[in-house]
Amino acid sequence: MLRSWRGLFSNRATGPRQPKGLDLGRPSRRGLLMARLQDAAEGEHFVEAAFHIIMKEAVRRGTDVNEKVCQWVAPEELESLLELELPDTGESEVRLLQHCRQVIRYSVNTAHPRFFNQLFAGLDYHALVGRFITETLNTSQYTYEISPVFVLMEDVVLKKLRELIGWMTGDGIFCPGGSMSNMFAINLARHRLYPHVKQRGLWVVPRLVIFTSEEGHYSLTKGAAFLGLGTDNVWTVKTDGRFVPVDVSDTETNRHTGLPLMVSATAGTTILGAFDPLAEIADVCQQHGVWLHVDAAWGGGALLSKRHRHLLAGIERADSVTWNPHKMLMAGLQCSAFLLKDQTDLLGSAHAAGARYLFQTDRCYQPRYDTGDRSVQCGRRVDCLKLWLMWKAIGTRGLRDRVNRAFACTRYLVTEMHKRDGFRLLMEPQFVNVCFWYIPPCLRGGEETPDFWQQLGRVAPLVKQRMVVKGSMMVGYQPHGKHVNFFRQILISPQVTREDLDFFLDEIERLGSDFQPM
Amino acid sequence: MLRSWRGLFSNRATGPRQPKGLDLGRPSRRGLLMARLQDAAEGEHFVEAAFHIIMKEAVRRGTDVNEKVCQWVAPEELESLLELELPDTGESEVRLLQHCRQVIRYSVNTAHPRFFNQLFAGLDYHALVGRFITETLNTSQYTYEISPVFVLMEDVVLKKLRELIGWMTGDGIFCPGGSMSNMFAINLARHRLYPHVKQRGLWVVPRLVIFTSEEGHYSLTKGAAFLGLGTDNVWTVKTDGRFVPVDVSDTETNRHTGLPLMVSATAGTTILGAFDPLAEIADVCQQHGVWLHVDAAWGGGALLSKRHRHLLAGIERADSVTWNPHKMLMAGLQCSAFLLKDQTDLLGSAHAAGARYLFQTDRCYQPRYDTGDRSVQCGRRVDCLKLWLMWKAIGTRGLRDRVNRAFACTRYLVTEMHKRDGFRLLMEPQFVNVCFWYIPPCLRGGEETPDFWQQLGRVAPLVKQRMVVKGSMMVGYQPHGKHVNFFRQILISPQVTREDLDFFLDEIERLGSDFQPM
Repeated sequence: MLRSWRGLFSNRATGPRQPKGLDLGRPSRRGLLMARLQDAAEGEHFVEAAFHIIMKEAVRRGTDVNEKVCQWVAPEELESLLELELPDTGESEVRLLQHCRQVIRYSVNTAHPRFFNQLFAGLDYHALVGRFITETLNTSQYTYEISPVFVLMEDVVLKKLRELIGWMTGDGIFCPGGSMSNMFAINLARHRLYPHVKQRGLWVVPRLVIFTSEEGHYSLTKGAAFLGLGTDNVWTVKTDGRFVPVDVSDTETNRHTGLPLMVSATAGTTILGAFDPLAEIADVCQQHGVWLHVDAAWGGGALLSKRHRHLLAGIERADSVTWNPHKMLMAGLQCSAFLLKDQTDLLGSAHAAGARYLFQTDRCYQPRYDTGDRSVQCGRRVDCLKLWLMWKAIGTRGLRDRVNRAFACTRYLVTEMHKRDGFRLLMEPQFVNVCFWYIPPCLRGGEETPDFWQQLGRVAPLVKQRMVVKGSMMVGYQPHGKHVNFFRQILISPQVTREDLDFFLDEIERLGSDFQPM
Repeated sequence: MLRSWRGLFSNRATGPRQPKGLDLGRPSRRGLLMARLQDAAEGEHFVEAAFHIIMKEAVRRGTDVNEKVCQWVAPEELESLLELELPDTGESEVRLLQHCRQVIRYSVNTAHPRFFNQLFAGLDYHALVGRFITETLNTSQYTYEISPVFVLMEDVVLKKLRELIGWMTGDGIFCPGGSMSNMFAINLARHRLYPHVKQRGLWVVPRLVIFTSEEGHYSLTKGAAFLGLGTDNVWTVKTDGRFVPVDVSDTETNRHTGLPLMVSATAGTTILGAFDPLAEIADVCQQHGVWLHVDAAWGGGALLSKRHRHLLAGIERADSVTWNPHKMLMAGLQCSAFLLKDQTDLLGSAHAAGARYLFQTDRCYQPRYDTGDRSVQCGRRVDCLKLWLMWKAIGTRGLRDRVNRAFACTRYLVTEMHKRDGFRLLMEPQFVNVCFWYIPPCLRGGEETPDFWQQLGRVAPLVKQRMVVKGSMMVGYQPHGKHVNFFRQILISPQVTREDLDFFLDEIERLGSDFQPM
């Protein structure tokens, strides 16, 4: 095979190979270069006009409890409403501003107080300004040369997050999302164990296995596939009925053999908001010298709360942590910190390629300020400013108050659910995920047969569809393990009040009480 | 080893294991939930005030040719200037706005007409508005449910990019940067060849080899490491003196054996702006059934120009293409399209994990509108709106004019360089990268000994340092292969005029003419 590849680029005689230099055309065209191609005044006018629309339609209306959370339109219809086709010739400012209004109008208001659908919600005004500045400055977080402020700022922000974990030293980097942060953890664990994999590939080492609970996030599986380890080599550990990891001796893991690479414990699972017992897992990892990663993408926010940070007790013993401040801390998508206890520049040794065009060593400052080569990305967005500015604005205390309030909302909702017929919790929440079934009147009081559960599984999709069409609120649902479809209510926005929570319960009843079995 | 892992999570008696439910504290606290925690009026006021600062300081001053490109401050000094520490208690609006001003003041103005330092530059006002709207709507591009507009819009934008490649059908997705797009290409090539690697890992297949030229981007190497293939298995093909790939029979690749996985050809190399002969490479790939990826992250913009798109002739024969509209098209960081000829949902089969909490199949629309599982990310930023709105505003023709103008600027600069002593091109540009040495008077006219080159290699860092301290402009430099440090001037911003280019040449002379050999 190799021989045939030798000639890969060798047929020099046949093709138009020689770079001919540029073909500019008539010299008279150069007169065009006398003036700028863009009209700045026109451009600024557009930005100002659009800003007013953004403030009115997206910020004010988007957070107004009297407005709809979403304006449901089916895909086929929306496609024709939006006039998405890209034209040959530019459109007028009036038309463009109309497009802006349409985009906002038909988008979901994730900042609405009754948006409970994802692990992000709400609007932090200061973080939003951080995002606007980031977008305007439009730079890449790889060298001090073109990102002086943000190189220093990223360092300070990551240090602060590490301190909340309990690390006075360490390392870290922002990644494009928690899945990527988790993949960084896999790669660093692999690099620490077998540094020559970077150069020679996985063929030179034994099969490597990642452990996580069956409640762990699916990005571990995606990461195992992407990084060449294979999804079979993610061993999922069963959990007990309350979704705390338990003994694995009777599980399918017996089928496998392989060398333990890392344990990814979860602090705040995606669906149930459950926390693995980190201290105990840390004991086992320590005993076996296995990398402990904690996926606290969701639960990391609890570290801000003195009352609730016990949920993550032991996290300081991890080797690495994923924490997404775009979730509970409301920094805005995306803001995912990958944090490391390591002080040996493992990020650099695992990821660096040493491209000299970007990372020169003869600059007028120390090369350590050029942090970009420690990522697998080249250009990398600035994700620190939004979090930094928000933190400056409300301080650690303000963040703590928000976290505590989210827990308080959760407790209020759960208490109210207990008072009403028809709401059944899947489990008592540990965190701010409230997982529950709404049991409509016609299904109450009888025996809970397989048919009962089958009918119950139809309730959430029906209620969800009605609420989306009505636009009154948004909450997610899913089946999970042996459980039929149930709602997962997420409470994080500081804009949520008791009234919103009462409305939520009333609205579920309004939308679901007439449910009839098939 | 397995046995000891069996008990991984089994010491149930010892730990504080049972989730206890939430500890809210005194019921009286619930009164706190009556009102919102955030003051919307205060927040909106801050956004308005900050917006005016952004417009004045970042947009107007940032693009004003009479202002500095950058305000150089050494890292240690900048650290103390910025007051980066994150406080316990929030700060006043006045202070926060001052922080915003400082962040802008000490950041590099990448939109300045004399910023020539990276493969991005300039400011498109419409794209900026697209980014502001994106940040305000703050959603994730994974389901139609919470991203209806952007699911449809991404599809339209990717289709348009594919059409410019010459594909009437196909697939694609936006990735967080060109490096990630290139990694997607590696993974899809691997998945097509050996789909069971996803499940079982690389151990079950022979060693796989990626081919690219020595001018290819370093993300191929990073990707090979990250995806478990190993950097040794990236075979770099040597190029000729003009940096067009040539015969590889005498190269180090002879040392290797392995199964060809893909060829990554480059359309617009990072440093030199060179184009691989795509049609010829496509012939070889076709003959051997090997995946052809074209990394057009940088050069893709030339597809807009009828005059210059011949540089990418043959790209339509690729299996996949990386194209970053945040570079030449000025959409704003980040906007990287990974484009595919495939119509078999290879993205889905290679990446999907089928998480049911996110991707339900009993929704009131077809599951194909939930596109998120086709990425390795979970939450994914909206990257289409900025490009879409810019395209609506100036049309395909406006984009084409910009691209043609960038070529015209390049030709003008090169012509002017030929007229002056002291500027020597590394090669005639094929694209908008102008790579050159500035030879100061004291080094001119003599024999070009090794010492001459060594001295010349000191010129660019000195000139660069002086220009950065002065803040007059920014241009990158690097050594490359056998060549000592040379400048790489990148011309893309439509705000660049002849005057800026004349200034550029004059300024290089001003800053470098007094150079003295050591």
